[in-house]
Amino acid sequence: MNDAETTVALLRKIVEQFVDQRDWHRFHTPKNLAMSLAIEAAEVMEHFQWLTPEQSWEVTGRPDQLAAISDELADVFCYALAMANELGVDVTKAILAKMAKNEKKYPADEYRGRYGPNDLGWQDTGLA
Amino acid sequence: MNDAETTVALLRKIVEQFVDQRDWHRFHTPKNLAMSLAIEAAEVMEHFQWLTPEQSWEVTGRPDQLAAISDELADVFCYALAMANELGVDVTKAILAKMAKNEKKYPADEYRGRYGPNDLGWQDTGLA
Amino acid sequence: MNDAETTVALLRKIVEQFVDQRDWHRFHTPKNLAMSLAIEAAEVMEHFQWLTPEQSWEVTGRPDQLAAISDELADVFCYALAMANELGVDVTKAILAKMAKNEKKYPADEYRGRYGPNDLGWQDTGLA
Amino acid sequence: MNDAETTVALLRKIVEQFVDQRDWHRFHTPKNLAMSLAIEAAEVMEHFQWLTPEQSWEVTGRPDQLAAISDELADVFCYALAMANELGVDVTKAILAKMAKNEKKYPADEYRGRYGPNDLGWQDTGLA
Repeated sequence: MNDAETTVALLRKIVEQFVDQRDWHRFHTPKNLAMSLAIEAAEVMEHFQWLTPEQSWEVTGRPDQLAAISDELADVFCYALAMANELGVDVTKAILAKMAKNEKKYPADEYRGRYGPNDLGWQDTGLA
Repeated sequence: MNDAETTVALLRKIVEQFVDQRDWHRFHTPKNLAMSLAIEAAEVMEHFQWLTPEQSWEVTGRPDQLAAISDELADVFCYALAMANELGVDVTKAILAKMAKNEKKYPADEYRGRYGPNDLGWQDTGLA
Repeated sequence: MNDAETTVALLRKIVEQFVDQRDWHRFHTPKNLAMSLAIEAAEVMEHFQWLTPEQSWEVTGRPDQLAAISDELADVFCYALAMANELGVDVTKAILAKMAKNEKKYPADEYRGRYGPNDLGWQDTGLA
Repeated sequence: MNDAETTVALLRKIVEQFVDQRDWHRFHTPKNLAMSLAIEAAEVMEHFQWLTPEQSWEVTGRPDQLAAISDELADVFCYALAMANELGVDVTKAILAKMAKNEKKYPADEYRGRYGPNDLGWQDTGLA
């Protein structure tokens, strides 16, 4: 199984079954899952805390480091999928809706190679 | 398009194209994306900050609230997918590998309805 | 030494000396310290992740748990003080300025025992 | 009032009174305050999200930017003080205890100008 052949729905089901089998829905309140999401995101961040942005690319050439990061990133996905399950949110629809907003907010022509009205880098930007 | 018919690879491609079209890879260092992930996770959390766990379920019956949370959750997914793109991590494989570890760490029989060796709730647990 | 007899300036100096003695200012860029702050805040949060709000009070009666939380909270303070040092921000003045804003935003009469224009708990509130 | 003449106890009292006057202790469970802390830390981080580490120093020369960051940093301090109040933790003692541990973990001689057993920068370090 890999990303090319796996639907979001299947990943959701895998997470759902894991939670079902342990009767953990009682703990997986949206409030608790939101905390879990933030905690796991911080654990991803920990790997990059003291690196320069340039150094942060170098993890791709360090298998052990990359595996550890990959594990933390998986945690973020698992909790995000668990939250989508609990809230009944379709992830694909949510992403498409958000990307449509982003297209309007950051027209490609205007924001190419820069992320603000000037190049000083002080404007917020990104995918969000 | 919805979760049932959409592969992870397709969602990754949608995010990739958005970043490509703006020539934003230069800003999307793994370090910066890790920060973005944590920032968006905090924005999800903000919706649940002052709610009781029970109240946090009630967002499902509040369309405006749910749409806003759905938007923030989409941001988390977008940045997590962007990071998978930059690092060359297969999300499906990473999730399956992590779930296999979780299966061993939290055997279903032992952890059913509880999340620690006793029921006091002081042990860490979850999907991670 | 305790909170009653210790000035903020003295705590700042203790943190500053620790950083000086290791020549770590080069790593303590505001960007890195902001990440550190968020990582340590997540580590505080980890202690409360699966507890109910009511259970979260019970840590005060568990010395080991409280000591561990106290350690993580100290980390948050240390990095916040380190950031104040690097940016040249007077913490006391910053807090007083923010509390003055909060006084206006949340008049005591209007917000007593509630944290929004109604009692449904869906409004944001707090000290921020 | 400034850091040189203000005790931690006084800052704690200012926060305590604000919470008292609004009868907000009921909302300020340790769990909720931990979330608040992480949310405010993320808001500090947002200011540095897309900046290079070098650029992140430049905020000191931008009064508007610095005031905004100062405000968010104040929020972190306020919630951290509120948590110390609710848990009955002496901040000064907690910081001194943690710094003593850090002194042992990171001997100044060994860690001067570097933050790991080698200079590659892949080891974790810092104040925590």
